[in-house]
Amino acid sequence: MEGIKVCGNTKIGETFLNSLEHKNFLFSLVISYTQTCEIPGITFAGSDPSLLKYTSPADAEFLHYGYCKSIQDIPMTPDGKPTPALLTKVALESASIPHVVINAGSKIKPQLPYIDAQLPAGKNITQDPAMIESDFLKAIDYGRIIGRTLSSVTDCLVIGESIPGGTTTALAVMRGLGIDAKVSSSMPQNPVDLKEGIVSKALKNIDSKDPFAIAATLGDPMIPVVAGMVSAASEVSKVILAGGTQMAGVLSFGRSLGFKKENLAIGATSYVANDESANFVDSIRQIADIPVLITDPMLDRSKIGGLRAFSEGFAKEGVGAGGSMIASTLKTRITPDKLFDLIEKEYLRIFT
Amino acid sequence: MEGIKVCGNTKIGETFLNSLEHKNFLFSLVISYTQTCEIPGITFAGSDPSLLKYTSPADAEFLHYGYCKSIQDIPMTPDGKPTPALLTKVALESASIPHVVINAGSKIKPQLPYIDAQLPAGKNITQDPAMIESDFLKAIDYGRIIGRTLSSVTDCLVIGESIPGGTTTALAVMRGLGIDAKVSSSMPQNPVDLKEGIVSKALKNIDSKDPFAIAATLGDPMIPVVAGMVSAASEVSKVILAGGTQMAGVLSFGRSLGFKKENLAIGATSYVANDESANFVDSIRQIADIPVLITDPMLDRSKIGGLRAFSEGFAKEGVGAGGSMIASTLKTRITPDKLFDLIEKEYLRIFT
Repeated sequence: MEGIKVCGNTKIGETFLNSLEHKNFLFSLVISYTQTCEIPGITFAGSDPSLLKYTSPADAEFLHYGYCKSIQDIPMTPDGKPTPALLTKVALESASIPHVVINAGSKIKPQLPYIDAQLPAGKNITQDPAMIESDFLKAIDYGRIIGRTLSSVTDCLVIGESIPGGTTTALAVMRGLGIDAKVSSSMPQNPVDLKEGIVSKALKNIDSKDPFAIAATLGDPMIPVVAGMVSAASEVSKVILAGGTQMAGVLSFGRSLGFKKENLAIGATSYVANDESANFVDSIRQIADIPVLITDPMLDRSKIGGLRAFSEGFAKEGVGAGGSMIASTLKTRITPDKLFDLIEKEYLRIFT
Repeated sequence: MEGIKVCGNTKIGETFLNSLEHKNFLFSLVISYTQTCEIPGITFAGSDPSLLKYTSPADAEFLHYGYCKSIQDIPMTPDGKPTPALLTKVALESASIPHVVINAGSKIKPQLPYIDAQLPAGKNITQDPAMIESDFLKAIDYGRIIGRTLSSVTDCLVIGESIPGGTTTALAVMRGLGIDAKVSSSMPQNPVDLKEGIVSKALKNIDSKDPFAIAATLGDPMIPVVAGMVSAASEVSKVILAGGTQMAGVLSFGRSLGFKKENLAIGATSYVANDESANFVDSIRQIADIPVLITDPMLDRSKIGGLRAFSEGFAKEGVGAGGSMIASTLKTRITPDKLFDLIEKEYLRIFT
């Protein structure tokens, strides 16, 4: 299909895509926080370290209002490269796809109505277990309830995330679960050594083979909530996990909860799939035999530096950008060229 | 249609009903709190005055889990007559109608995921304005966002409420807006004098003709949230306001926000419509030319005292009971006899 490439199991991938042409989609953005992001140098998701806690609520606000309420500007890197929520917003609006925001432990409440999973933020995994057991189990339960409800009102639930530092916790969970994963990053010079150091340190805090203990200790609140959502929603509707490394982390733990495989795919931008410091498609293949859907936003063609930056490795995925572009393409058959034009227009609306 | 009677404008009522046969419904329960309910003798919605703040979250929990988490038993009158949520739960389950909970100022958070409108509880209207202006405007805004989102994923949004003391604040708002309303009650001996006294006292706090000031001063947080929901949702889908006096109060203020009349109806049990101390159908006629849909749960036929009590005037409406029975009938053509059987079964499940 123009605009969507299937990796992994291409046969079930094509069946999955065909079943969703011109169907209804619902996008859900799960916002969260892990204190792991406060380790210096770990993330670019937010221009100022003291503002990191505003990144995910600001993503939610931008998606909804087209501007942020909790902070003045939209989330961006220190030199002004914007959040991938820009791509998500354009994709959802182009296809009139409704969205809901789920608060799974954000430190700051977004200034809009959201579904509250009533969870605290995740701890720094080099120092403490990310979550206490009762919160971890509640996160799964509430995720299941949310997933069941949302899947019952749509043909396909698309799940995106925004959690600064989330690639590191996802990497830790995958490693803890024995998956040979490397991870992508919001920075072009992926701080691989720093992340590996954090993960090694965190892995020392675990001496269990129990996937629940591993994900509760090494993960973040987004992971059990989304794993619960996938588990319940895939029984009712199609589900697209919209993201790269973070969603690979969700999937690696999600196997323990179970899901209906034929209803699940993972979707991301080509910038994640092509990231040579990571091994996204390979990681997914190790975890589950589900289709990997890839879309190329073609931002390398843009005359706008802030957009070209995505293709050069800044903020290459997140806020469900790739998955929502895939959903928009499936619902309306919008062409990649048209989406590209709309993305440039939206960038100019924001910055001029 | 068997099981649903149309009062008010019967022609548009029949058109409304016909357009919804076998369609998809989504039920939303808006839970809230007004300190007005703490005035002794005003409500039976909760068996113990100190437990009143648990009534609406417990209704939400019962609807979802089939039991309550915040309190031990399900909400009931002091002598054990159950919440109308029992009827709502049976109706929604009989037709696989999904539901969401919206927290619009409940004092206690329900123990399940809910959509948070981020509002404080309403004040006692005999002492203070119910809401400060900024919260009132936020309630409308957030209501609009919620209404737009929910209506975009269904053919018909059904809106119910649970707010102890809410008939009194609804009466005050209607009187403040010049509507000659009497109100129903959760008690068979409706404490009309007490309510009239409260309303007279509250009306002295207002010297404005501005509907926004009147509803903010004399109402409760549920009213602007639901009015906002109706305003936005009726542009997209059909909407059934599921309730009696409280929803008449919403409608009386909702006129100021506007709504798409041909997409809106109000639905309630016959116990509200037949209440001789109130004048439900007349009140609606004074407010808006929309169909009034009435369903008779026929609980006077029940051998179970706790169910017969509804027909004798206890807890005669609430938690969207009538509206959800109407939705269930429209979606599945379930007969009144079958619904009656399911209600008796559910009562026995809970109490034996």
